[in-house]
Amino acid sequence: MIKIGIVGYGNLGKGVEEIIKYRNDIELVGIFTRRDKNEVQKLSDNIVYNIEEILEFKDKIDVLILCGGSYSDLPVQGPLYIKDFNTVDSFDTHAKIEDYYKIMNEISINNNKVSIISIGWDPGIFSLIRNLFNSILPNSNTYSFWGNGVSQGHSDAIRKIDGVIDAIQYTIPIQNSIDKIRNGEIPILSNREKHIRECFVVVDENYDKSIIESKIKNMPFYFDEYTTTVNFIDLNELKNKHNKLFHGGNIISTNSINNNKNILELSLKLDSNPLFTASILVAYAEANYRLQQEKKYKAYTILDIPLSYIIDKKYYFKEI
Amino acid sequence: MIKIGIVGYGNLGKGVEEIIKYRNDIELVGIFTRRDKNEVQKLSDNIVYNIEEILEFKDKIDVLILCGGSYSDLPVQGPLYIKDFNTVDSFDTHAKIEDYYKIMNEISINNNKVSIISIGWDPGIFSLIRNLFNSILPNSNTYSFWGNGVSQGHSDAIRKIDGVIDAIQYTIPIQNSIDKIRNGEIPILSNREKHIRECFVVVDENYDKSIIESKIKNMPFYFDEYTTTVNFIDLNELKNKHNKLFHGGNIISTNSINNNKNILELSLKLDSNPLFTASILVAYAEANYRLQQEKKYKAYTILDIPLSYIIDKKYYFKEI
Repeated sequence: MIKIGIVGYGNLGKGVEEIIKYRNDIELVGIFTRRDKNEVQKLSDNIVYNIEEILEFKDKIDVLILCGGSYSDLPVQGPLYIKDFNTVDSFDTHAKIEDYYKIMNEISINNNKVSIISIGWDPGIFSLIRNLFNSILPNSNTYSFWGNGVSQGHSDAIRKIDGVIDAIQYTIPIQNSIDKIRNGEIPILSNREKHIRECFVVVDENYDKSIIESKIKNMPFYFDEYTTTVNFIDLNELKNKHNKLFHGGNIISTNSINNNKNILELSLKLDSNPLFTASILVAYAEANYRLQQEKKYKAYTILDIPLSYIIDKKYYFKEI
Repeated sequence: MIKIGIVGYGNLGKGVEEIIKYRNDIELVGIFTRRDKNEVQKLSDNIVYNIEEILEFKDKIDVLILCGGSYSDLPVQGPLYIKDFNTVDSFDTHAKIEDYYKIMNEISINNNKVSIISIGWDPGIFSLIRNLFNSILPNSNTYSFWGNGVSQGHSDAIRKIDGVIDAIQYTIPIQNSIDKIRNGEIPILSNREKHIRECFVVVDENYDKSIIESKIKNMPFYFDEYTTTVNFIDLNELKNKHNKLFHGGNIISTNSINNNKNILELSLKLDSNPLFTASILVAYAEANYRLQQEKKYKAYTILDIPLSYIIDKKYYFKEI
C-alpha cells in the first residue's frame, strides 16, 4: 500500500480523495488544510489535520500530493515540503516550470527525496503528446486547441472587474481551423482564429453593463485578441446552468514526407477538469513511490519518467 | 552526428533511409543487404554492402536499425547483431515480445549494448498510449481500431491461396462502434463489430472465383470472424488503384467517476505505413545513442524509455 497525504482541499484535493477510492494499492493517510480543520472535516470522510501538524507524518506518508494553486501556493509549498516529503504537484505556469524544476531538483537531491512536478493535463499529458508527436514526425506542425470548457483563469479575471458578482468563461475552439489542420493544411492561426471566448456574467444592478462588457472585451492578453461574447445572466441561472467544470482539448500534428502525409491527433473530453487532473496526480504518485524504492532522488517532469513506472507490467503489450 | 546502419532494404529500410534525410544530427553509414549488393545499389543513393561485410563496421556504426520482418528475420538478426552493435527494431509479434525481450536483454547486458525492441506504431506508439490512458483513468475501458488501411499480413494470407496472382486487403473500422464509444457507451464488441475486411483479388482465369472467394471468407482467424467482401479485379487495376500502403487507427479510452465521464482518444492517419514506422525507429535510434552515452546497457521497450531521450529539451514545456 502506498500511503498518501493531500495538502489543500479545494476542487483538486477533493478530486484526489475521490480517485484514491478507486485504487486498492493506495491508502489515504490524511488531508492537510490551512483552514479550520473542523470546518473542512465536515466536507470529507477522511481525517483532516491542520497543516501545522504535517511534520508529525514525516515517516507515515510515502507521497504528499500538493493540491494548491500555482500562483501563490506551490512556489512556497513545493520547496517547503520537499525537504521532508516526496511530492507530486500540478505546477502549471508554463513559463516558470524550468525555474521551479531547478529549485525542486536541488532540494530533492539534498534531502534524498523524489519530487514530480507539473503533473496534470497541460502541462502534463499534453506536454507528453506534443513532444512525442514532434519527435517522431520530421518537419512537423503541431497545434493545440483547448475546450470546449471552463477556463478558471479567465473566469477569475472577469470576477475581478468592479460590479461583477460572479462569472464563468468558456473557451471554445474554432472548428473550421481544426478541420483545416485535419485535412493536412498548415494554416498560420492568430489567437482569434483558434478560440472563441464566451462569458456568462452576473453584475450588480448599480453598474453599467455596457462598461463591464467593454472592460471584459478589451482586457489585454485575456480577451482583447479573441472574439469574445458576453452574456449577462442572474445568479440563479449561473448557479444552475453553469456549475460544471468540464474541459478538454486537442493536439494535432501533421507532416509530409515525399507527399506522404501523417496526421496524429490526441483528443480529451473531460466532464470534470479537477477529477481528471487528480487521476493523473495519483498515477504519478505511484511513479514517485517506485522511484523512491530505487533511490533515484531528484526532481522529475512527466517527460523524465518512463511510462513503465505508472503501469502494470501485465498490460505492457496487450492489444486491447 | 549519430552514425546509423540499416539492415534490410525493403519498404521499411527504404523508409528509414528517407527519414534520415530529414535529420541533420544523423548520418547514414551504409545499407546492408542479403541480396546482391550491386542490384540493391541501383535502388539507393547510399552505399550498399553485403550483410557479410557488417562486422567491419563494428566501431563505425552507433546504432543499427534492423528492418527485417518479425516472422523469420528479427528472431535471428536481433540476437545475432546485438552482440556487436546497438540496435533498434520493430519486432511486432505481440504474443512473443516478452520472450524476445528476455533474449535481447541478456545478450545486451553481456555485451555492453543497448537494444530497443518493438518500436513502431503497434506495438510502439499504440502500446504507449494504451498504457497511458489505462494508467491514468481508474476503471477505464480501452478500445483499439485499426484502419482504414492496408493489412500486409492479410494481403499475404490471400496471396497464398492457389489461383491467386496478387491481392490487397483493407481493414476498415466500423464507424457505428467508434461512435458508440465516443458517446461514452461501453459496448462489448466482437471482431465482426469492430472491423470489416475488404479484399481486392487478381486470379488466374483457370480457377473458380467462387471457390477462391469461399476460401478467403472462411479462412480461420484471418477472415472467418469478420464481414469480408471480395472484389475480383485485373492486375492493371490492382497496380494502378491499389498501390498505396496507407494505414492508421484509433485508441479510445473512457471511464466514469461519480458520473463524470472522460473520453480520451488517439488517432493516426498515415499515407505511408512504412515511412511512419521508419520515423519512429529513427527517433528511437537517438534514444539508443543517448542511453549508450550513459552506459545504460540493456534491452528496452518504448515503455521503458523516458520521452526526454527522444526530444529536444528546448521544446519541453512550450505550449505550441
